[in-house]
Amino acid sequence: MTNNIISLNELVNQFSRLPGIGKKTAQRLAFWILEQPPKQAKAFADALITAREKIHFCKVCQSLTDLDICPICSNDNRDKSVICVVEDPKDILAFERTREFSGVYHVLHGVISPLDNISPDDLKIKELMARLASGEVKEIIMATNPTVEGEATASYISRLIKPMGVKVSRLAYGVPVGADLQYADEYTLARALEGRNEI
Amino acid sequence: MTNNIISLNELVNQFSRLPGIGKKTAQRLAFWILEQPPKQAKAFADALITAREKIHFCKVCQSLTDLDICPICSNDNRDKSVICVVEDPKDILAFERTREFSGVYHVLHGVISPLDNISPDDLKIKELMARLASGEVKEIIMATNPTVEGEATASYISRLIKPMGVKVSRLAYGVPVGADLQYADEYTLARALEGRNEI
Repeated sequence: MTNNIISLNELVNQFSRLPGIGKKTAQRLAFWILEQPPKQAKAFADALITAREKIHFCKVCQSLTDLDICPICSNDNRDKSVICVVEDPKDILAFERTREFSGVYHVLHGVISPLDNISPDDLKIKELMARLASGEVKEIIMATNPTVEGEATASYISRLIKPMGVKVSRLAYGVPVGADLQYADEYTLARALEGRNEI
Repeated sequence: MTNNIISLNELVNQFSRLPGIGKKTAQRLAFWILEQPPKQAKAFADALITAREKIHFCKVCQSLTDLDICPICSNDNRDKSVICVVEDPKDILAFERTREFSGVYHVLHGVISPLDNISPDDLKIKELMARLASGEVKEIIMATNPTVEGEATASYISRLIKPMGVKVSRLAYGVPVGADLQYADEYTLARALEGRNEI
């Protein structure tokens, strides 16, 4: 039956393009849309178009915003001398939840990954260097993910920045809070030992 | 950050209304949309509106179609004297995959469920009775789900139809093909015993 309804097929296809949504789930979602009042489908469609049109990168930190400069960058209470460099806008949400960081951010929009054909030029590294030119920045915290690519990107950027006399730091490795040590992997434990602090 | 971008919030809300999509997944999908070319968001929006506008119930079987009468109902090779009554348009897909059924369908769009406030009047039962009026129909196969509500709906409809002299049958219960008997539940096994056939 689905095969005979072109417009339903098209909707199923659109849903199944979403990451993590398979054909079966896409079909279920499409059928659900058909059961809703037309107003609901219209509101969804409007939200898609409005979000895609209005939201762009912040001119300063390259995070997502519907303003010229995002609320964090334009907040006078944030410490502009410390920049936390992250891979993804979603990482900012995680840091903001800690309520422990009062500096500003910079979003790379990815990591260097030769296998995926992503070179430094594909990331927002030029934009980061431009921010350092003002001389206002004292420290860069490299907060890329603790993966091979995240590490490589952090050390690549750190090599670029160090000659400019700006301090570069990296997030601490260690055992996660609340974790059970018997299940910790050997790399994490080794790093936790290496970075042990006196108490 | 998300909290500051109204249009992003709205998109996340729309995604999280979808069945089975939680707040976290909705956020991931919304961010993914922002990474796509605007054309992609537009195509998704168009598919939503077109599907919702064009697709309606088939005048005969109440399944979904973008025509007046769906391809199954308008197919002269289908046996119009046997109607398979299902809960949901998706059930038709399952039957069509078997390639074993050459009759036509009728979609109830739900089951009687007093707990959910769904009474017989909320289902497409009137439309089914209207199809029987022609006298062309010889058998009704009740193919509602093997649940308490599905059973109740099947016997309710069967009581309505039997006085009209039309044969009413029910799908056979039994162990699923390929199943491991040690994991079969007692109700299914009991029904499989009850319905045993001579070989």
